[in-house]
Amino acid sequence: MMNRRNWLRTAGLAGLAGAAYRGPLPLSASPLGSADQPVRPLGLPRARNIIFFVVDGTGFEDLATANYYSTKVLNRPLLFREIMGRGASGSMLTHSLASVVTDSAAATSAWSTGRKIVNGALSMLPDGRSLTTILELAREAGKATGLVTTTRMTHATPAGWIARVASRDSEDEIAEQYLEFSPEVLLGGGAGHFLAESRQDGRDLLGDFRAKGYDVLRTREDLLASNADRLLGLFAPGTRHLPYEIDRRFQDAPSPSLAEIARKGIQVLEGARNGFVLQVEAGRIDHANHDNDPAGMVWDWMAADEALAVLVEFVDRTPETLLILAADHDTGGGTVYGYGSGYQGSTPAFRTLERQRISLEGFNALMGRDPSLSQIRDGTTKFLGFTPTPDQSERLQRVFRREVRFGHPTSHLGVLNSIHAVLSEIPGGDPDRPNLTFSTGRHTAGLVPIGLYGAGVPRTALGVVDNTEPFGWMAEALGTTFRNPEMTEDEAWRILSEPGVQAEPSFRHPQDD
Amino acid sequence: MMNRRNWLRTAGLAGLAGAAYRGPLPLSASPLGSADQPVRPLGLPRARNIIFFVVDGTGFEDLATANYYSTKVLNRPLLFREIMGRGASGSMLTHSLASVVTDSAAATSAWSTGRKIVNGALSMLPDGRSLTTILELAREAGKATGLVTTTRMTHATPAGWIARVASRDSEDEIAEQYLEFSPEVLLGGGAGHFLAESRQDGRDLLGDFRAKGYDVLRTREDLLASNADRLLGLFAPGTRHLPYEIDRRFQDAPSPSLAEIARKGIQVLEGARNGFVLQVEAGRIDHANHDNDPAGMVWDWMAADEALAVLVEFVDRTPETLLILAADHDTGGGTVYGYGSGYQGSTPAFRTLERQRISLEGFNALMGRDPSLSQIRDGTTKFLGFTPTPDQSERLQRVFRREVRFGHPTSHLGVLNSIHAVLSEIPGGDPDRPNLTFSTGRHTAGLVPIGLYGAGVPRTALGVVDNTEPFGWMAEALGTTFRNPEMTEDEAWRILSEPGVQAEPSFRHPQDD
Repeated sequence: MMNRRNWLRTAGLAGLAGAAYRGPLPLSASPLGSADQPVRPLGLPRARNIIFFVVDGTGFEDLATANYYSTKVLNRPLLFREIMGRGASGSMLTHSLASVVTDSAAATSAWSTGRKIVNGALSMLPDGRSLTTILELAREAGKATGLVTTTRMTHATPAGWIARVASRDSEDEIAEQYLEFSPEVLLGGGAGHFLAESRQDGRDLLGDFRAKGYDVLRTREDLLASNADRLLGLFAPGTRHLPYEIDRRFQDAPSPSLAEIARKGIQVLEGARNGFVLQVEAGRIDHANHDNDPAGMVWDWMAADEALAVLVEFVDRTPETLLILAADHDTGGGTVYGYGSGYQGSTPAFRTLERQRISLEGFNALMGRDPSLSQIRDGTTKFLGFTPTPDQSERLQRVFRREVRFGHPTSHLGVLNSIHAVLSEIPGGDPDRPNLTFSTGRHTAGLVPIGLYGAGVPRTALGVVDNTEPFGWMAEALGTTFRNPEMTEDEAWRILSEPGVQAEPSFRHPQDD
Repeated sequence: MMNRRNWLRTAGLAGLAGAAYRGPLPLSASPLGSADQPVRPLGLPRARNIIFFVVDGTGFEDLATANYYSTKVLNRPLLFREIMGRGASGSMLTHSLASVVTDSAAATSAWSTGRKIVNGALSMLPDGRSLTTILELAREAGKATGLVTTTRMTHATPAGWIARVASRDSEDEIAEQYLEFSPEVLLGGGAGHFLAESRQDGRDLLGDFRAKGYDVLRTREDLLASNADRLLGLFAPGTRHLPYEIDRRFQDAPSPSLAEIARKGIQVLEGARNGFVLQVEAGRIDHANHDNDPAGMVWDWMAADEALAVLVEFVDRTPETLLILAADHDTGGGTVYGYGSGYQGSTPAFRTLERQRISLEGFNALMGRDPSLSQIRDGTTKFLGFTPTPDQSERLQRVFRREVRFGHPTSHLGVLNSIHAVLSEIPGGDPDRPNLTFSTGRHTAGLVPIGLYGAGVPRTALGVVDNTEPFGWMAEALGTTFRNPEMTEDEAWRILSEPGVQAEPSFRHPQDD
């Protein structure tokens, strides 16, 4: 047994004759009550149109990184920053009903229904009760609706605006619920859950959509050529998302850009008689952060900002439009850190981000399962912009061969995270690679940006709001006082604790987004 | 030489026949100009008093962590969150004159002078020109002034409000400049730079302060007993800061709390004929983040919030007071990450934060340089609240013996960071330790919280402001249009690039704060 008195003497810290853990202990009395802040209406007037713009899986550290990349490397201001300063803005809590860390399904459901639910479900309480989404309320008000995203069409964030399912993984079912609801615009990736050959039930949903009058688009050329007023665009095969922006821009990965699909969505919807409600999601910032891919993250932020420019241009010429900007949660905990003496190497290191010209996903695919050391060295030099040491090349080779993974042991990191972990080691002297690292490959509990701009939006501080509040703002803009039923965290835990309901801890990285 | 066509074939990614790095490449034309956002006045009325409240080294992830700890573990709302929702608030860019990552010296100087300077200096341009601080302008307006902090008194953040030095390390000089300026209140740690026996010049600055009418305080009892109207309080020996809140609260480390020194500072200053300007700094959140000490960080946030309650109580009964809340930069990039299947283990893991009852600094001191494996196991169990595996105990033993360090290779992590790196590995099954990890031991470039409350403050969205803007707000409140000279980043780099000016990259962790 250890003798604590001896430790104290040894350490010369006799003052630390202190207490071990003995259970919760309150702070001294607070001048405040214990009630949480209530949902605060903004007093918004009715809006003809609502656009909800999502940056998925990103927070205030990434926003700074994107801002510095845009201003210091590309020499243009970040529009997202400017819009945060023009209307109502602040930060947002993202916890779900029974977890301080949300997934995208619970987060999008909080926006679309005003209620917290448990991770993994879409607009459905843990007891199976379906919630009414803001897109249903918009439909009742005679408005057109649409979902635009860079993820596959049936992924959680777009799905939560329409579908009610117990599991976000029920993507065949989500596609069917899209057909049933029939929003005027569906533009994204991942055709798989619509095709007879890849659906469990063999049903040809594409045919069903066509029968309902949809123009089905599969390529950028289809998109640009279409003049239809009902669109189903699926610009990636199987379960694939649209390509990372860095690959679309620099590796000629064939795809429309987020700005292009957002523009097309608005073109279709602005013809609607009674206005519209549209979600536009920059969905792959989250994926790049899961992968710990620094330039992948930055370039999807740049693509998001270009799409935002399309939306802001529309809002500015259509003033009865409410635009909401929001992130659903942070992912990866990526930070640009201080490098060099007095951190004076920070900016030169940061600027090397522009040398990376392929996503880590694309780089991994190029390298294959057994690249030679010289292939690794030359490929890293050519596509990532710096030359690895022999030791790094050897470690990378073991990563590509699936012999080892690097990174924080609890993060269950994958091949791409391991590539980042090896390559992010900056040598002394002049920095030749970015000073950007990650704390995890998962989501985090951090606050995220939230902003409103457009129709009747006051320039007001939101402070720190909850992620159920945007539903209330949209309801105000629709002129409805509808509220969904809710459940407490304790009630949710009772249900989650029933036998067979909660699985053993496991991880679905990188699809745990 | 590698054949890229072969890679493409191997990887089945023929679409990726893309481009390597060939230098900067602009985005497609932006609808926006290239000018950065100008400093925006808030139209504040004159204020009798200004209180600038600093949370040092913390950002929006930590703010979420502190909020969840306060509400979910301690069952009380976080006042910082509430105040962000009552006045003007937003987020703030923190880059210094020639670095995307600031240190505390350049950050506090940006607030106090309205100008960006290079890291390491205090209120002085790289060419040696001294800048005028807001405390000097306050003095000219007949106001009393004060600095309250949990760091040592001569540390960068408090110093930047008064001292003008080329290096923040010139702390003997900073103490002399304090004497010369003679603010009514100086309350913090670190007596060393005031004492004849530890100053390079052997000067007895304490005697000089006494000769100027200061009551010199060295203990909490001194503080509570004093009725003087000029205070120099130095509540820690040598170069030490006040203890971490977790050690003060649970290990009986003798010290006044931040709330107590803030209250005393206000008691003295509220008697001033023409009002006052006071900085109150929660300075050790930053240090806990440098150390990667999760509960250390959280408890200094709790102490900050208790001190904020003292300030808000004063503002609410003295409405002609402007209160500004700000962080100077983020440190550590700490995040609460998703744990378990569907991240449903996140909240149980998070709640285990309350089991840690000593700072990692205190724990390291208790353990000494050569603890036995059983001492490590028992000490971890007793003070950190969980039992390490035999493998973890062995790795910790090597850490305590200074044989190895763990963590990100470029972070030059220390012993405390290594303790965190080993102990943050959560086993499968029920979590018994916190799901909080860090990306670095250094500062980051992230956006940080900024808020205003009190005298004439509109409830307005600040958006994303620059850290030079608070100077303008304080100048408005003082009724002055004074502006300091400024320097461009290019000019700064020309000076930094002169021979002998810039040192080789090295690190001063954990004192690089």
